[in-house]
Amino acid sequence: MDKFMDAAIQEAEKGLANGGIPIGSVIVHSGEIIGRGHNQRVQKGSCTLHGEMDALENAGRQPASVYQNSILYTTLSPCSMCTGAILLYGIPKVVIGENKTFMGEEELLKSRGVEVVVVDDARCSKLMDDFIAAKPELWNEDIGV
Amino acid sequence: MDKFMDAAIQEAEKGLANGGIPIGSVIVHSGEIIGRGHNQRVQKGSCTLHGEMDALENAGRQPASVYQNSILYTTLSPCSMCTGAILLYGIPKVVIGENKTFMGEEELLKSRGVEVVVVDDARCSKLMDDFIAAKPELWNEDIGV
Repeated sequence: MDKFMDAAIQEAEKGLANGGIPIGSVIVHSGEIIGRGHNQRVQKGSCTLHGEMDALENAGRQPASVYQNSILYTTLSPCSMCTGAILLYGIPKVVIGENKTFMGEEELLKSRGVEVVVVDDARCSKLMDDFIAAKPELWNEDIGV
Repeated sequence: MDKFMDAAIQEAEKGLANGGIPIGSVIVHSGEIIGRGHNQRVQKGSCTLHGEMDALENAGRQPASVYQNSILYTTLSPCSMCTGAILLYGIPKVVIGENKTFMGEEELLKSRGVEVVVVDDARCSKLMDDFIAAKPELWNEDIGV
């Protein structure tokens, strides 16, 4: 297993344990995690801190050269907002846990030259399947439906 | 003049007065401002709180029906991250102060059915022209260059 996807899943599980939406992310630069985070809609009342955004935010202000040599790991296919952040900062590669429960903007990422890898990790799908079944309204709120 | 663009400019000026990047935004629903904000890179060390994102964040958690009947005003053409947030929440109309100092993802917005209005407000351009001349490195950091 990939230790960085494991770390993203740990973030998702941390969010779930605190009553939140179980989506986690880590940003890896030169083989080290420089930012990690999870969806903060419930915990911080935030509509912008999706897992990927929280990881970016927690990585702090970085120069373009860091983003442009980083890999973003996320447990779920990134929505248009998180996709836009990836494009803004020129992150060249995204590793996605699963895209069965939600298909994000993978085609847009690819069309802009971002390498997209979907690992189809059953742990990620189970986290989301269980969560969506338990709290569909919260999930819909998070994806603007 | 449009009082909502005036409010977005006031946000940009507030940011500038605190040493920040002078980009502001407001979100308007049913004729009322429900969220206002400005770029927080300097003030909060944030790489995700662009003006539009800060306005969204300050509007708090809203149901889809609110976003889908709102207008986002921003002093500067929205970058890919802010564009993605607009698309995520289905905000149907964006009013942009200017796009001369930075051309954002206006074509992507239009291709997804978002109404884009550029008012070409000289106050917005001057804020950015002066800022970019004074602090080019900070500006480049903000747009991932």
